[in-house]
Amino acid sequence: MSEVNSNATTIILFGATGDLARRKLYPALYSLYKKKNNFAVIGVARRDYDHEVFRQNVYESLKNHSNPENDAEDFIKRFYYYPLDVKDTKAYDGLKELADQLNDQFDLQGNRMFYLSLAPEFFAPVTLNLKQAGLTTNTGWKRLVIEKPFGRDLESAAELNNSIHEVFEESEIYRIDHYLGKEMVQNIQVIRFANPIFEGIWNNRYISNIQITSSETLGVGERASYYDHTGALMDMIQNHMLQMVALTAMEPPSRFVTEDIRDEKVKVLRSIRPLTDSTVANSVVRGQYTRGTMPNGDVVKGYREEENIKEQSMTDTFVAAKLHIDNFRWAGVPFYIRTGKRMTAKSTEIVVQFKDAPKRPYFNNFNDLQPNLLVIHVQPDEGLSLKLNAKKFSTGGGSIPITMNFSNSNNDDGSSAYERLIQDCIHGDSTNFTRWDEVALSWQFVDYIAEAWKERNIPLDRYEAGTMGPASAHELLAKDGHHWWPLTKTTEK
Amino acid sequence: MSEVNSNATTIILFGATGDLARRKLYPALYSLYKKKNNFAVIGVARRDYDHEVFRQNVYESLKNHSNPENDAEDFIKRFYYYPLDVKDTKAYDGLKELADQLNDQFDLQGNRMFYLSLAPEFFAPVTLNLKQAGLTTNTGWKRLVIEKPFGRDLESAAELNNSIHEVFEESEIYRIDHYLGKEMVQNIQVIRFANPIFEGIWNNRYISNIQITSSETLGVGERASYYDHTGALMDMIQNHMLQMVALTAMEPPSRFVTEDIRDEKVKVLRSIRPLTDSTVANSVVRGQYTRGTMPNGDVVKGYREEENIKEQSMTDTFVAAKLHIDNFRWAGVPFYIRTGKRMTAKSTEIVVQFKDAPKRPYFNNFNDLQPNLLVIHVQPDEGLSLKLNAKKFSTGGGSIPITMNFSNSNNDDGSSAYERLIQDCIHGDSTNFTRWDEVALSWQFVDYIAEAWKERNIPLDRYEAGTMGPASAHELLAKDGHHWWPLTKTTEK
Repeated sequence: MSEVNSNATTIILFGATGDLARRKLYPALYSLYKKKNNFAVIGVARRDYDHEVFRQNVYESLKNHSNPENDAEDFIKRFYYYPLDVKDTKAYDGLKELADQLNDQFDLQGNRMFYLSLAPEFFAPVTLNLKQAGLTTNTGWKRLVIEKPFGRDLESAAELNNSIHEVFEESEIYRIDHYLGKEMVQNIQVIRFANPIFEGIWNNRYISNIQITSSETLGVGERASYYDHTGALMDMIQNHMLQMVALTAMEPPSRFVTEDIRDEKVKVLRSIRPLTDSTVANSVVRGQYTRGTMPNGDVVKGYREEENIKEQSMTDTFVAAKLHIDNFRWAGVPFYIRTGKRMTAKSTEIVVQFKDAPKRPYFNNFNDLQPNLLVIHVQPDEGLSLKLNAKKFSTGGGSIPITMNFSNSNNDDGSSAYERLIQDCIHGDSTNFTRWDEVALSWQFVDYIAEAWKERNIPLDRYEAGTMGPASAHELLAKDGHHWWPLTKTTEK
Repeated sequence: MSEVNSNATTIILFGATGDLARRKLYPALYSLYKKKNNFAVIGVARRDYDHEVFRQNVYESLKNHSNPENDAEDFIKRFYYYPLDVKDTKAYDGLKELADQLNDQFDLQGNRMFYLSLAPEFFAPVTLNLKQAGLTTNTGWKRLVIEKPFGRDLESAAELNNSIHEVFEESEIYRIDHYLGKEMVQNIQVIRFANPIFEGIWNNRYISNIQITSSETLGVGERASYYDHTGALMDMIQNHMLQMVALTAMEPPSRFVTEDIRDEKVKVLRSIRPLTDSTVANSVVRGQYTRGTMPNGDVVKGYREEENIKEQSMTDTFVAAKLHIDNFRWAGVPFYIRTGKRMTAKSTEIVVQFKDAPKRPYFNNFNDLQPNLLVIHVQPDEGLSLKLNAKKFSTGGGSIPITMNFSNSNNDDGSSAYERLIQDCIHGDSTNFTRWDEVALSWQFVDYIAEAWKERNIPLDRYEAGTMGPASAHELLAKDGHHWWPLTKTTEK
């Protein structure tokens, strides 16, 4: 049996008519198809499509978000549609029938991937219904892929987790954090652990502070009603931002295997200094954008003016926070994180700021001496920059800052985060998915903040759209004698 | 009095009709003239020129090696010629007269720079004659610039030094090592000490070995008769190569002032492990090129076939050596140096090879994991490269080597090494010149090798022109499990 066949699978995709499926999943599956993965897809949703209409939808998705060639015709023939009201337990029998049939038809080895691109309240019932209908007693492997959010707080997440565990083992659960599928996020551990020169200085002796930004220029858009009872804290900090903190701060695992890596990430999350009443007020900024002018000149609405947003909404569209990781490597090194909508630029990057050279008596005449920075560009640029000081080119003395760049753009094979993650799932590699204890610790951290905001009258700081957040986000660093480094290729206001 | 005037000087240049003056010094002086330095030049040589002929020669030099503009007319009017047999003590009186006259004419503040671009046997007599004629009792500062070689061994160098010291203080002596004027050689200490990330890993915990190459494609050319009783050891190792070792290895000085920096360089030279009968045989390679084909296809003569070279010449046109620096920073880190003529490419570079990551258990599946390298490109390219490992761009695992570059080429203001050094001398900054104790320690190291070669029947290893030296130069590193890294932008044979 070929390597390809052992990875064959039926993909049962709930939410097949949704936005994520259209924009990300179908293009990703098309790439995986081109790379000789053997699968069939059953699209599941409420709408009354037939196979043909569904296939045309998939094809449209490729036209808009990929580059369909001749083989796309064959590709979409692997797509089947099954209309389903997810609460209609009886209807799952037909789904099982179709899955069994496709399994035989495409020689899919009895393997099944259940991909839930659904509103979170359906995760638990769908899982249980799958079991009841016998869909999860297939002959090959079974794996569950769940989109965020995994719960709304630790309590609801734990409840959801318990339900799912009635059907799937922890090792069968693939909780998607699509940031973990990004090329440069996956690169963090290679950069750190395959380059001894970085591992040697990756600690509080050499590092002054670490700044992780994930900024968007978009407003709340079509996700308004979802977003208004979620906010940046739950939407970004609980998952993506804390995951990037964990990857940047983790100790080298003793083996490069899934559970060892996850163990190290958990150790970081567990070492984040717990917040207190006073630190939550001093180290966490919550912001909300007001009307403003974007860098392209567009005047945009304030958050509270957006459609489907409550007039007096207290939802955070921006969060900045200072974390301390209380272990031997990081004691004394603040991790500053920030994320928000309607900011100056769309950018995700990790800036490692190294401590200054002992300036006096060395370079007190060098008036342009800058700290060394290592910048990991996650998106939209992918790459690495190292900012150094060099001799000023002249007969005189002095230094000038120089930048050494490595840009990924010419080398990427075009794999998207979703393609990588689905491929990992097909291979049974859950390294780049979040384990339950990671999720639980993240919720614990975030819950404290959410509760403090609710209970303790902590202000919501307004910021103009098109800026890098409220003044308090800048004061957060200024208090420590630091400042946010400007985003690459961006003019901060 | 303006800043410019306080740096005014009469430059008395011995060897004014020589090759170095034509190719390097006149273009450098022209640049310094453009930068508002106030000086007049008295060209001294044997030939029976007058001022006009000399000025035309200077102008020709600019046409061939610089870019004379309208102001070149005024520039060459500052050049005067004084024909002199350097042994004719009486004739120095006229030189003094001319110098005094120009001092008044150009308002040169009584300052005098004596630049000896002469065969080394004339250094001492000329210096003494200058004194006798009263040329060195001028009213301003006096400085002596001496080209290499400073002696032929420690004994002759000490003798020369004693003679010169009868006229000039150590602080008035500017021993030229033009490598110390090169942009990227001067950059070594800025790169090291202005970037804490490098200083943190600049030691035997992180560095595996250091490789310093200075290779030429040229053969012995017109310098044949000089070269045949000098060789690469004296011509390159004693000065340029050991200076680059010292700058790469030195401890940070407590102040960035001349004597503190020189003190630190001396400490390195003093810490080089003394050679013994067995180490000189095992750690030093002497080579001589034979007929061969250069990368451009030219078939070139072997060294012994060159004009003005003795048929059975044992002169070294190539030297490779392994040094140990016995201090706490460098114990266990070999410094490999090599220099030679008729090699594959013209290149001077310093490669810092860092130790491997603990590969197992980490990256045993990463088949293209390379050591981290920091490469300082001295010439012809000027810049910095950092070779790292990154994630292989794909859905799979693995690493690929990446290179981050900083190239100086677009930023250099065009200053040559000689321009920088003469400017330093005008400013009274002797940092980038070699102090007597540096010279003495270098000779001590080199003398031992030269004597061993002479006395102990150590083989002369032949290498084909157009290669990177004899096989023994490669074995030198192979014995330690290392290899020479290919020169940048070069195909090694």
